[in-house]
Amino acid sequence: MRFHTRKWIKPEDLNANGTLFGGRLLDWIDEEAALYTIIQLENQKVVTKYMSEIDFKSSAKQGDIIEIGIEVVKFGKASLTLSCEVRNKMTRETIITISNIVMVNLGADGKAKPHGKTEVEFVANRLE
Amino acid sequence: MRFHTRKWIKPEDLNANGTLFGGRLLDWIDEEAALYTIIQLENQKVVTKYMSEIDFKSSAKQGDIIEIGIEVVKFGKASLTLSCEVRNKMTRETIITISNIVMVNLGADGKAKPHGKTEVEFVANRLE
Amino acid sequence: MRFHTRKWIKPEDLNANGTLFGGRLLDWIDEEAALYTIIQLENQKVVTKYMSEIDFKSSAKQGDIIEIGIEVVKFGKASLTLSCEVRNKMTRETIITISNIVMVNLGADGKAKPHGKTEVEFVANRLE
Amino acid sequence: MRFHTRKWIKPEDLNANGTLFGGRLLDWIDEEAALYTIIQLENQKVVTKYMSEIDFKSSAKQGDIIEIGIEVVKFGKASLTLSCEVRNKMTRETIITISNIVMVNLGADGKAKPHGKTEVEFVANRLE
Amino acid sequence: MRFHTRKWIKPEDLNANGTLFGGRLLDWIDEEAALYTIIQLENQKVVTKYMSEIDFKSSAKQGDIIEIGIEVVKFGKASLTLSCEVRNKMTRETIITISNIVMVNLGADGKAKPHGKTEVEFVANRLE
Amino acid sequence: MRFHTRKWIKPEDLNANGTLFGGRLLDWIDEEAALYTIIQLENQKVVTKYMSEIDFKSSAKQGDIIEIGIEVVKFGKASLTLSCEVRNKMTRETIITISNIVMVNLGADGKAKPHGKTEVEFVANRLE
Repeated sequence: MRFHTRKWIKPEDLNANGTLFGGRLLDWIDEEAALYTIIQLENQKVVTKYMSEIDFKSSAKQGDIIEIGIEVVKFGKASLTLSCEVRNKMTRETIITISNIVMVNLGADGKAKPHGKTEVEFVANRLE
Repeated sequence: MRFHTRKWIKPEDLNANGTLFGGRLLDWIDEEAALYTIIQLENQKVVTKYMSEIDFKSSAKQGDIIEIGIEVVKFGKASLTLSCEVRNKMTRETIITISNIVMVNLGADGKAKPHGKTEVEFVANRLE
Repeated sequence: MRFHTRKWIKPEDLNANGTLFGGRLLDWIDEEAALYTIIQLENQKVVTKYMSEIDFKSSAKQGDIIEIGIEVVKFGKASLTLSCEVRNKMTRETIITISNIVMVNLGADGKAKPHGKTEVEFVANRLE
Repeated sequence: MRFHTRKWIKPEDLNANGTLFGGRLLDWIDEEAALYTIIQLENQKVVTKYMSEIDFKSSAKQGDIIEIGIEVVKFGKASLTLSCEVRNKMTRETIITISNIVMVNLGADGKAKPHGKTEVEFVANRLE
Repeated sequence: MRFHTRKWIKPEDLNANGTLFGGRLLDWIDEEAALYTIIQLENQKVVTKYMSEIDFKSSAKQGDIIEIGIEVVKFGKASLTLSCEVRNKMTRETIITISNIVMVNLGADGKAKPHGKTEVEFVANRLE
Repeated sequence: MRFHTRKWIKPEDLNANGTLFGGRLLDWIDEEAALYTIIQLENQKVVTKYMSEIDFKSSAKQGDIIEIGIEVVKFGKASLTLSCEVRNKMTRETIITISNIVMVNLGADGKAKPHGKTEVEFVANRLE
């Protein structure tokens, strides 16, 4: 799994108990899944269709740095299934895991549309 | 299921495709689950421990009004399991459903602690 | 008065003194008045035209849960007058009251337009 | 009336109709009243106690620049009454006016406390 | 230099160390430079092209009030060069200074376009 | 240069012209510089002290994905100097570059403090 996006936990990210607000974390994960999919499918029109169960293993506190990892599970015809792990950057303790996030590729008409991709591509290869 | 909190979809809630950003919706659901639990357990220290699979059935667009419904599934010893449905207020179309959201009751030491509740109470009863 | 939308006071909602920021509260009330009006008038194009005097009776602190109540005062020809009360969900202490919030129904041209409604309707009745 | 703080209307400030969200405007006004009071009373602990009726005379759209003006109406013993006008910076059209905003000076115990001020002071005079 | 826009440092503006987040401050400065330019050039389509070195001389803490000053350095043909200073409103301590912020005037085609201005105008003069 | 954190440009990130708001970008860069420094210096108390000139080479629009790259320029005694480049993930077009961002390591007393580091460490090495 490759960990890219990192966040620094600031006061605006806390719940009323002073720990990382779970909803904020899900917000970040959904954005990361969307942008990973956009890059892989080379299509800006994608939507989150499904997330498998979410286990909150530990939390984070103000000042912590977390990183969000995404890995491809499966290329569907019009979809891409990802798995996600968020962990504490310094201690590597796992904060949350989601085994399956299904992202759907949309056409201009807003309906599911085959994307023609079958494996992970690195942007470098596509551009150079 | 009782639907309480309602949201008006504004530009700041949209993803880059101009529909409701899924992460924003998960953020709202997590807040609603937390506050429902705080009210039922009469304890401000609660955390989200688990969410079962999430199915994004439809989306919403700018100007739509959605409402978030929560129902109790089960009272555990130190936990409360909820189910959630979000729907479009005008059309009643379902946007998202989550069958099980497990919230945990914490003690002052931050560890799970029995809450002693076994059924839904309405605040009116407690206060009058 | 029916209380629907509820908020959990998080660090991002506080003023520099660590209590609920009054401006944030007015922001929430204006949104609630708008969405209540949209539902009643079945028209997404509505604007806030007037608010009567606002009395800040008490505040709220981090971790509190508040709920926002709205009631219809009067159906005008092209307007809807509402009253609003915000209170602490657990203690039922009143935080703020506003006796008259005048919302105006707009036509496609952005001008006031008669809405043809004369009494509160419950969405259930309209849809079933 | 002196106009200081200015805002540039961005997409995040719009309601679902694409005009300036009234709640956002009230948020800005409350902040401006608070900071004006803090400067005049030389005390960081102040709260908004009352706002007289609010008339939304016109709106603003994306890209507009607005400016917020504050003027002292009266020095009370433990309070400061302000009036406020918000207008479009380029056209000078009035967007909103509030005749009386009562701000209260608090002591360390969180209770109203005489502030000893009787007239507007300019920071320049106090510091030089 | 004229100081207009003022901000009240709230919890949402802090970094994880509890002092004013530098990124938030740069966000505010960029907005102030943009709106100053829009007013001077009477054109809503302007972009930030360049900022000279930024020296963070001091910070601010929750509850502080800061004010943002802007001054014209030079009128270019299609640009406007500004300088900026942010200071603590009460102590007048300087928080940040930027000697040159180059703003560019754009035409409807999104390309640099001469603005025809050569000196600072006060809106009052233009409108009365 | 290693590119980690990625952002998906959403409506809330746009300026009034509908392109990426420069202030938002500076906000993201400052956060990335801070968390990179925290990881390298193994100290959560760091501040941004200086940024060299900033050249806005191109912009980004809604739906674009950008990535933020950071590289170490120099280890000072109590500081760390970084360079930064932000580029469009798909086209690799450069959006902004900053040659020198000086971050300072602070002690518990809030004053600059030697950090004892002389070269980039990868967290993997430290932890395994």
